[in-house]
Amino acid sequence: MATAGKVIKCKAAVAWEAGKPLSMEEVEVAPPQAMEVRVKILYTALCHTDVYFWEAKGQTPVFPRILGHEAGGIVESVGEGVTELVPGDHVLPVFTGECKECAHCRSEESNLCDLLRINVDRGVMIGDGQSRFTIDGKPIFHFVGTSTFSEYTVIHVGCLAKIDPEAPLDKVCLLSCGISTGLGATLNVAKPKKGMTVAIFGLGAVGLAAMEGARMSGASRIIGVDLNPAKHEQAKKFGCTDFVNPKDHTKPVQEVIVEMTDGGVDRAVECTGNADAMISAFECVHDGWGVAVLVGVAHKEAMFKTHPMNFLNERTLRGTFFGNYKPRTGLPGVVDMYMRKELELDKFITHSVPFSQINTAFDLMLKGEGLRCVIRMEE
Amino acid sequence: MATAGKVIKCKAAVAWEAGKPLSMEEVEVAPPQAMEVRVKILYTALCHTDVYFWEAKGQTPVFPRILGHEAGGIVESVGEGVTELVPGDHVLPVFTGECKECAHCRSEESNLCDLLRINVDRGVMIGDGQSRFTIDGKPIFHFVGTSTFSEYTVIHVGCLAKIDPEAPLDKVCLLSCGISTGLGATLNVAKPKKGMTVAIFGLGAVGLAAMEGARMSGASRIIGVDLNPAKHEQAKKFGCTDFVNPKDHTKPVQEVIVEMTDGGVDRAVECTGNADAMISAFECVHDGWGVAVLVGVAHKEAMFKTHPMNFLNERTLRGTFFGNYKPRTGLPGVVDMYMRKELELDKFITHSVPFSQINTAFDLMLKGEGLRCVIRMEE
Repeated sequence: MATAGKVIKCKAAVAWEAGKPLSMEEVEVAPPQAMEVRVKILYTALCHTDVYFWEAKGQTPVFPRILGHEAGGIVESVGEGVTELVPGDHVLPVFTGECKECAHCRSEESNLCDLLRINVDRGVMIGDGQSRFTIDGKPIFHFVGTSTFSEYTVIHVGCLAKIDPEAPLDKVCLLSCGISTGLGATLNVAKPKKGMTVAIFGLGAVGLAAMEGARMSGASRIIGVDLNPAKHEQAKKFGCTDFVNPKDHTKPVQEVIVEMTDGGVDRAVECTGNADAMISAFECVHDGWGVAVLVGVAHKEAMFKTHPMNFLNERTLRGTFFGNYKPRTGLPGVVDMYMRKELELDKFITHSVPFSQINTAFDLMLKGEGLRCVIRMEE
Repeated sequence: MATAGKVIKCKAAVAWEAGKPLSMEEVEVAPPQAMEVRVKILYTALCHTDVYFWEAKGQTPVFPRILGHEAGGIVESVGEGVTELVPGDHVLPVFTGECKECAHCRSEESNLCDLLRINVDRGVMIGDGQSRFTIDGKPIFHFVGTSTFSEYTVIHVGCLAKIDPEAPLDKVCLLSCGISTGLGATLNVAKPKKGMTVAIFGLGAVGLAAMEGARMSGASRIIGVDLNPAKHEQAKKFGCTDFVNPKDHTKPVQEVIVEMTDGGVDRAVECTGNADAMISAFECVHDGWGVAVLVGVAHKEAMFKTHPMNFLNERTLRGTFFGNYKPRTGLPGVVDMYMRKELELDKFITHSVPFSQINTAFDLMLKGEGLRCVIRMEE
């Protein structure tokens, strides 16, 4: 490529300070260094985590910063030592990585890579501790190693999943974060068998992706739990057969579900991050074989509490991170599920805006409207 | 058999009231009714649970009662509808049953049979609500469906495991409760792979059986945790490579273990029933793949508490009951493990007394001496 080895000037949406609208700027993107890849982003979506670190409430503020982590793009050039990717490859950037060498990557079970595990406070590349973004020579910080709100970005090779080039990037870009997180929580961790009953707590995009996993698994009954009654109608598209609003009941929601299901559901997936919902999700699974899976991230002061007998009666509680998918090894298969039409993605996309209107995507999310807004880098 | 269909008069050790020495009496044992089996007990051992319900502190007192549930015997006669057992079969009575028909028995994962699940308050047979034991016509209550402190007892067919008649009953009688509970917690639930590290909390008979399971699994390092330093020497026979006494450390024992193992053990099994030990067992397993298993039964007011992030970092917590063994389906295979010399049982037997000295077994347990005392019904 003519641009390889050179600085690329392009458009990026820069967060100059917490909570202020992103500003469209011309940035310089340095060439990728050892084990890095420069990627041309074609589509990016907005996820709650972007908004969370943009608001930076109770977080270490890292500004100016280029946010964005749910995206799809094409490799522009690769740095020294990169052998698995070449220019032109289609890739999904991922906020957490897979070095393929640490104890976690060598474990069949874990995706918590020691080298490239998510780090929300780091605004630089791990190779040399520098940013690859500058404006007039002044560094602009990275975000979770991806910074996809830029036409070009530099990413560690361990944080890029190479996918089928036939897959439409405007759809499969969603798999780089939220949808895989929910889907994998069900398919890889809860693992419902055909005909089982499943409860999903929290019907945002992640919860509905967990529900999509239950639908794909052939669950006989899928109980959606949400405080917002408006979520019911939308959830039906994802296989929801029963809707429970905890506000409609005087008894704890776990008791309501246990009664509805003659002893409890076979599987529960918690996607809100609220500690009480975690307890409900655990206590609503059937004794003997029930499995509850925690996905939502809790507050620092939160506490999970239950009577030990709830475990001793042969219930299992597990947590998951990014749906237990190893980014490089696991995501290509999820893309293939979409290509085989087993996984439905289009129903998650409720909005689409050009890059110049990225702040509209923030407004929609702050208002709680829709599930995913895809941002088109090319107008 | 000449005795079939008739009342048998034999010796039994009767608990007339809470905490008072058992009294050797002549009892009448009625013939087995539908789905029941009369068993001649040859060996029985004393387990903490017998002592617990004999002391009856905070329990519903059910007296006069014939205690005992860890035993081995031979079928004397069978009641109507019993097709799987015939007189002469060698059996292990089990305090919890397997009807083979309920949802739990049909589940591959659960052994919490709906019909025959342990019931510590019931002192009668489930078929007709009557006791099969009398003294001068007055009923003596049963205990957990087994009442093995009697030369003859009547047991529901669903609570009897038919085993290899070559197996020595004076040894394999231990498999009818505590040893299978600990062993199964490791082999069936924690499932350590060869080379993994395992921590065992509480080094009584159940904990040492869990440790035996770790040894059989080829664990590379087995960390025993107990407040009593005297437990260390004994534990070495069960594969213990490291001993940690929480009293020797100022920091929580989970932190000590995490440091010893560069991030945590692969598996932990909790056999004390203390809620703090449960929390330690969970928090000492490695992120990404660690599994902690709860075996010990907690107090009614106990609470399991942990920060949800400990789950979200991909740890699993499960509870188990009777090592997840289905009594009839699972126990014969455990006996076979002993016969193949994979499982070592003899080292659990520290004492042996004739039936007439059964109160000595109680004294030994109350003093905390030894692991298992086998009681020989024939002097």
